Amino acid sequence: MVCFIKKHAKKITSLVLIGALALSTVFYGFSDKTKTVEAKTDKTTNVTTVGNTKAPKYVFFFIGDGMSFPQVQITSDYLGAIKQNSSSEILSGNKYLNFMKFDTVGSAVTYDSSSFCPDSASTATSLSTGHKTYSGVINMDETKSVSYETIAEKLKKQLGYKVGIISSVNINHATPAAYYAHQASRNNYYEIGTEMVSSGFEYFAGGEIKQPTGAKNDQKSIYDLAKTAGYKVVTTQQEAKALNSKSGKAIVIGETIADGGALSYDIDRKSDEWSLAEYVRTGINVLDNKKGFFMMVEGGKIDWACHANDAGSTIKDTVALADAVDVALSFYNKHKEETLIIVTGDHETGGLSIGYAGTDYDTFLTNLVNQKISYAKFDSDYVANYKKNNTAFESVLQDIKKNFGLLTSSDVDAAKYPKLVLTNYEYNKLYQAYQKTLGKSKVTLDKQEEYVLYGTYEPLTVTITHILNNKSGINFSTYAHTGLPVPVFAKGLGSNVFEGYYDNTSVYTKLASLLNIK
Amino acid sequence: MVCFIKKHAKKITSLVLIGALALSTVFYGFSDKTKTVEAKTDKTTNVTTVGNTKAPKYVFFFIGDGMSFPQVQITSDYLGAIKQNSSSEILSGNKYLNFMKFDTVGSAVTYDSSSFCPDSASTATSLSTGHKTYSGVINMDETKSVSYETIAEKLKKQLGYKVGIISSVNINHATPAAYYAHQASRNNYYEIGTEMVSSGFEYFAGGEIKQPTGAKNDQKSIYDLAKTAGYKVVTTQQEAKALNSKSGKAIVIGETIADGGALSYDIDRKSDEWSLAEYVRTGINVLDNKKGFFMMVEGGKIDWACHANDAGSTIKDTVALADAVDVALSFYNKHKEETLIIVTGDHETGGLSIGYAGTDYDTFLTNLVNQKISYAKFDSDYVANYKKNNTAFESVLQDIKKNFGLLTSSDVDAAKYPKLVLTNYEYNKLYQAYQKTLGKSKVTLDKQEEYVLYGTYEPLTVTITHILNNKSGINFSTYAHTGLPVPVFAKGLGSNVFEGYYDNTSVYTKLASLLNIK
Repeated sequence: MVCFIKKHAKKITSLVLIGALALSTVFYGFSDKTKTVEAKTDKTTNVTTVGNTKAPKYVFFFIGDGMSFPQVQITSDYLGAIKQNSSSEILSGNKYLNFMKFDTVGSAVTYDSSSFCPDSASTATSLSTGHKTYSGVINMDETKSVSYETIAEKLKKQLGYKVGIISSVNINHATPAAYYAHQASRNNYYEIGTEMVSSGFEYFAGGEIKQPTGAKNDQKSIYDLAKTAGYKVVTTQQEAKALNSKSGKAIVIGETIADGGALSYDIDRKSDEWSLAEYVRTGINVLDNKKGFFMMVEGGKIDWACHANDAGSTIKDTVALADAVDVALSFYNKHKEETLIIVTGDHETGGLSIGYAGTDYDTFLTNLVNQKISYAKFDSDYVANYKKNNTAFESVLQDIKKNFGLLTSSDVDAAKYPKLVLTNYEYNKLYQAYQKTLGKSKVTLDKQEEYVLYGTYEPLTVTITHILNNKSGINFSTYAHTGLPVPVFAKGLGSNVFEGYYDNTSVYTKLASLLNIK
Repeated sequence: MVCFIKKHAKKITSLVLIGALALSTVFYGFSDKTKTVEAKTDKTTNVTTVGNTKAPKYVFFFIGDGMSFPQVQITSDYLGAIKQNSSSEILSGNKYLNFMKFDTVGSAVTYDSSSFCPDSASTATSLSTGHKTYSGVINMDETKSVSYETIAEKLKKQLGYKVGIISSVNINHATPAAYYAHQASRNNYYEIGTEMVSSGFEYFAGGEIKQPTGAKNDQKSIYDLAKTAGYKVVTTQQEAKALNSKSGKAIVIGETIADGGALSYDIDRKSDEWSLAEYVRTGINVLDNKKGFFMMVEGGKIDWACHANDAGSTIKDTVALADAVDVALSFYNKHKEETLIIVTGDHETGGLSIGYAGTDYDTFLTNLVNQKISYAKFDSDYVANYKKNNTAFESVLQDIKKNFGLLTSSDVDAAKYPKLVLTNYEYNKLYQAYQKTLGKSKVTLDKQEEYVLYGTYEPLTVTITHILNNKSGINFSTYAHTGLPVPVFAKGLGSNVFEGYYDNTSVYTKLASLLNIK
């Protein structure tokens, strides 16, 4: 969501707000769906029990933003495809990601009060509070007058759990914000930042704080406010490594920052650069304590990659999420009786399909091995120069070969890699997009057609990923979110309650009930 | 699958066979994944127990062909959208189909030995025998020398269960065939027909037998062979109504037959024409007995509609499947302790997404209310005449308005239904398709582009459904199948074993284990 919203801030905000404001005098009363269950805390073991069931003391809640069944399955299929024995005619199939083999895999319906294609603010509100609201709204009702307390806030207040919030995108972006902030608009970044500081949560980590001195750059820095409030603000991996349960509250900002102030796409990550997993590991070091903790971890760049219809980056960031889950699994193995791990998505992004009209019943997923860079880094490292230098198409094609593997029929490697050779149709599409990006286009496309072709992305880059996707036998339908349900993978104490096909608000009610949160 | 295969019979068969024949000397040994569990049958109650668990005596196995999460969710969302209170700005969300609320909802991975985008023959083989095989192959291994016995055959042989096989498409098409036939190619319709007769299964119902006198029309009719083998062949609803457990073995062919010898799309079904549910009801009447029964019910036209990218017909046939499940639920309510109902898909068809680039975060699902006819009936009832009479585009537009609701900007109703008014872009696409269908086209499209636009369908009709889909905020990515996992909805005795994310071969092993089948 985030990336799209960023690029469309004005349009989306106005669309969402028009609907919402028109309704500002209507009160919509949500029934509290939280099932209250008698709870006891044994003071000697400090284990909270729900009815006769012990409540999980350590809760990991992973959100793959924009990740639903297609993103999980394509990653699993890709990993299988690259392991396929090339001498066998028999397809050996997919390789399961760790969380695909969790005890329970439920399905959650994601619509929000605005649309069947909901946004990250409203869907995270549903996950964190059990309420539906309008797209763009964080933990407030549709009248924007009632705030909802989040599961993280309740756990801290009612059970004394420590809380960690990790995201590969900005830590005051919609999904992480939905665990500590209450705002009529997800675009109130500064206000969200102040709520982050006042939350008192023990650990924040990931991308930069967005608009830390406010939209007009005239406010006291959130980083300074955080320091005043007792947070250690850490910006190097070395400092972060030293953090532990005695360090006190900490905010860890990635040492390397990429597009939009986020962590790097995993496909672009340097070998010495921390992956999402490292922030989870550090989080455990900071949060581990006898009362328990709740850690929300967002793989936010899955969503950004899907918005941009960049399948290669989507797959790598989904693997990065699974690697982060691995860290939680190591913790789980030491605390099996007390730990619950949930891995879910907030909504699907992109309408990703494993299959494409142009390739019928075939896929060629190993084509994606040739993608070496995210769309965003290609934009910043290459396309920016093309625009500046009015680079010739022939030179651009060489970069495309190097970074995405696509070849022209006259390329020396064309015979060797036939599946990567541009057809006339594809070549023409690419050339048209190149012209559009460089402002050389002589063809005026219908506005609607142009939007379907490029969205709000760099025409050249999005056409490269479209062509590589399609040649791999996959496709995206949209630059926005879709209404597909999301899987809810659960492992550990109480995981079985996440069984079934239910509304995303039930993810909250089920978890709150397990934890005996009121 | 069926429809596509039908149209592409030659191409697909050759593609599949080339791969398979190349391998015909290689033996690929599948391990038998069936878990054997100690079983006992209590002769007084006739209840078979597995370990300490009673085995289900009545098993309903529904397969929505081509139905995965997108088909289920869009139907659920559509039903919600048409119930939405128009005076409320707050979206009230989806309406759950009966099976969405089953006890257990697992996810099954569908790749086959040929592709991540598998076909119906191989996927049904996985569901019915627990083995992977090549696309196009029915219950045989990749060498096409080893046959697999199906769960239905085993239940009949080992436990004396009666068996019913129902399909809304031809009863010797791939999915139903996978419960009784063993053929190197799904296109061996006559041979499949002979296996149908020799199966001795008590009840077959649905569409016509395909090629009943062989591909060359030179064989003894399957219908006659069936009669000789003791089957009552019934072709009217009135005769079918009279069937019961004392009638003996029966084959019930739909009184009204539509495209390809199948039952009607539910959207085209006349009020007095039997729906899929009626064939299930009759099946229960025929099969009910003390030893137990297994009934496979295929909603085959969901797949055909998705191949054609016809969302309106997809939704109606998914509702028809849910209505058929309702009949099983009524039976379940009378035999709660002994009944298991499974509802699943064999694979996803079409790459359907709830969301489309042109409509961003919006959907307009109620647009689909205006579709009154399936693509196939529009082809036969309208397009055939257009071709014969060289009908003017203006007249065609009037039929499009009547049958799909789409309007031109100059239409008298344009102001009243703005969401259904064709944009210039859409109008031009439609006109281009009309010209193509009528052989008037002056533009020569690139072959690849043309295939992406129309597949093997009537350009005019598939463009109408594409435009109506897109204006409704939904999209299809392909005319073939995709690699999305399918949901496995289970209710009743033993249903919990279908929990989790697993291979489609496990659907068989889980069921066989529950039933104590070797």
